[in-house]
Amino acid sequence: MVASVPEKNKPHNGIQSLVDLVARDMEAVNRLILSKAGSNVDLIPEIAKHLIDSGGKRLRPMLTLALADMFGYQGSGHVTLSASVEFMHTATLLHDDVVDESDMRRGKLAARKLWGNQASVLVGDYLLGQAFKMMVDVGSLEALRVLAEASAVIAEGEVMQLGAAKNLATSEASYMKVIEAKTAALFAAAAEVGPIIAGQSAETCAAARRYGMELGLAFQLVDDALDYGGSSADLGKQVGDDFREGKITLPVVVAVERGSDEDRAFWRRCLETDGIRDGDLEHAIGLLRRHGAIEETIARARHYGASAIEALAALPAGRHRDALHEAVEFCISRVN
Amino acid sequence: MVASVPEKNKPHNGIQSLVDLVARDMEAVNRLILSKAGSNVDLIPEIAKHLIDSGGKRLRPMLTLALADMFGYQGSGHVTLSASVEFMHTATLLHDDVVDESDMRRGKLAARKLWGNQASVLVGDYLLGQAFKMMVDVGSLEALRVLAEASAVIAEGEVMQLGAAKNLATSEASYMKVIEAKTAALFAAAAEVGPIIAGQSAETCAAARRYGMELGLAFQLVDDALDYGGSSADLGKQVGDDFREGKITLPVVVAVERGSDEDRAFWRRCLETDGIRDGDLEHAIGLLRRHGAIEETIARARHYGASAIEALAALPAGRHRDALHEAVEFCISRVN
Repeated sequence: MVASVPEKNKPHNGIQSLVDLVARDMEAVNRLILSKAGSNVDLIPEIAKHLIDSGGKRLRPMLTLALADMFGYQGSGHVTLSASVEFMHTATLLHDDVVDESDMRRGKLAARKLWGNQASVLVGDYLLGQAFKMMVDVGSLEALRVLAEASAVIAEGEVMQLGAAKNLATSEASYMKVIEAKTAALFAAAAEVGPIIAGQSAETCAAARRYGMELGLAFQLVDDALDYGGSSADLGKQVGDDFREGKITLPVVVAVERGSDEDRAFWRRCLETDGIRDGDLEHAIGLLRRHGAIEETIARARHYGASAIEALAALPAGRHRDALHEAVEFCISRVN
Repeated sequence: MVASVPEKNKPHNGIQSLVDLVARDMEAVNRLILSKAGSNVDLIPEIAKHLIDSGGKRLRPMLTLALADMFGYQGSGHVTLSASVEFMHTATLLHDDVVDESDMRRGKLAARKLWGNQASVLVGDYLLGQAFKMMVDVGSLEALRVLAEASAVIAEGEVMQLGAAKNLATSEASYMKVIEAKTAALFAAAAEVGPIIAGQSAETCAAARRYGMELGLAFQLVDDALDYGGSSADLGKQVGDDFREGKITLPVVVAVERGSDEDRAFWRRCLETDGIRDGDLEHAIGLLRRHGAIEETIARARHYGASAIEALAALPAGRHRDALHEAVEFCISRVN
């Protein structure tokens, strides 16, 4: 078995050190986000503000800020790249909600429910364009390469997920590929561009990238576990969203593997044939519990969390590294 | 009245000089497009290939090639940027068809009819990501700035169009703003990046940009006129698509301005309230003819075409300039 983040009795507020560390820069990021979400076309700032105000944790942009500041980066490029990263993420959320036909996002009605799918697609495109404009402002071709690559990979991951949806034959390996692309790639890029603009060595950049990648995997695994167990208020979405949308996440993959033929018939009816009835979600959660599928998913998240912490060893010790370490624990403790 | 492109008795094949001029480079562009539309996720090359094979004229990428070659550009950056431009365009088409709920594109079923809206949104995002990766490969921050700006402006134009749809109060000025953003901005950027990577002066780059911008306006005006008068086979879309989608294009703006109260009530019923019945398209075309709305739109296109040719005067004389001149005539002659 692999090393893992130790289980805690109480979820602690491990994100606070990171929040405090980048607080001043994050104010600048928020100002930049608001100004770059502006447009003479009223609908654009309206929709962008809806998402920006809806209280995301800004985890990805914090990675960029902390990992540039760790190396004493002087200048404002980390603020600008950080805002680009958040715009890329916001654009993805807008498009995701259209693709998934989601009703809620972070506890509020999804933009597509308020302004329609059409506006969500186009405003997502606008934010992506603004993100690239900001990257150009920073002037680092290397950072641009990393973020442009992430942008293509994220979309690739979403297409993969679309192919895997409603397909119970999805393997653990293809599930991991999907989340690496759709989630972890942006965490990795957000982390990597910090040392890149601070002029650090390829080894240092690679360590930051690995930290972000492993953290992103842990984060998504926890999210997928929460979808079958967190409380709606904590998560900002309904429990069972993935189930209703026919998404095959790791908890389901594990439960299908470990289940009986009868169980598999149940999953097939629910996830492959759009046939969800009253009581199905409760039955699904019961099966996941019986087969230890949630625990297995969380154990897997702990494994990637431990790898993220391992990657930090190649970065300089100090309060930045401590805060990044605690952020890993925070991501995992969300589910405890 | 402004200068205009002289009317011709017969539409001539003015695009051929440009096609011949860039033929070798265009082969390289086509190879690059095919390779960059590749992905391990099967759906991506499948959808991309559908659009790429569907016989667009590749007008935008030809501008980039010709306007780099005009200045003796050595290297392969113009080929790469040219492919990026086509990817940006293809991504826009995919998203447009979702937003407009179009059934046809270039005479074939729209991708969204074959693979669904979800895949169209995501594959569009993928192609946009690939476009930015290619731009980074070229390494010109200035070209990147121009294309990133275009990407944001195009989306802004599409959002504007969404706001103007089904709104008969749309003025000529707002219509022109929409087509400048959604269409002409990419023509302008495609033209401008040619002299940029060939290291030309700001004045030269601005002249190329102006040429592209005016050509793009002419092109879109002709397209909007064709939507009420071209034959389906020529246009690759059904006559009356804009009408059915409630798009307020210049022909309609002119006919509404010049029409009676009764006419306005007709347009309002058809375009604002989704109430199109059998025979309405024929009646609409009749009104457009009676009020000279198509002729007015084409006259306007000629005006912008003349401005495009005017812009060419600041660029070096020779076969490149001649071909770009003829391309203007081709764009306008499509409607004759």
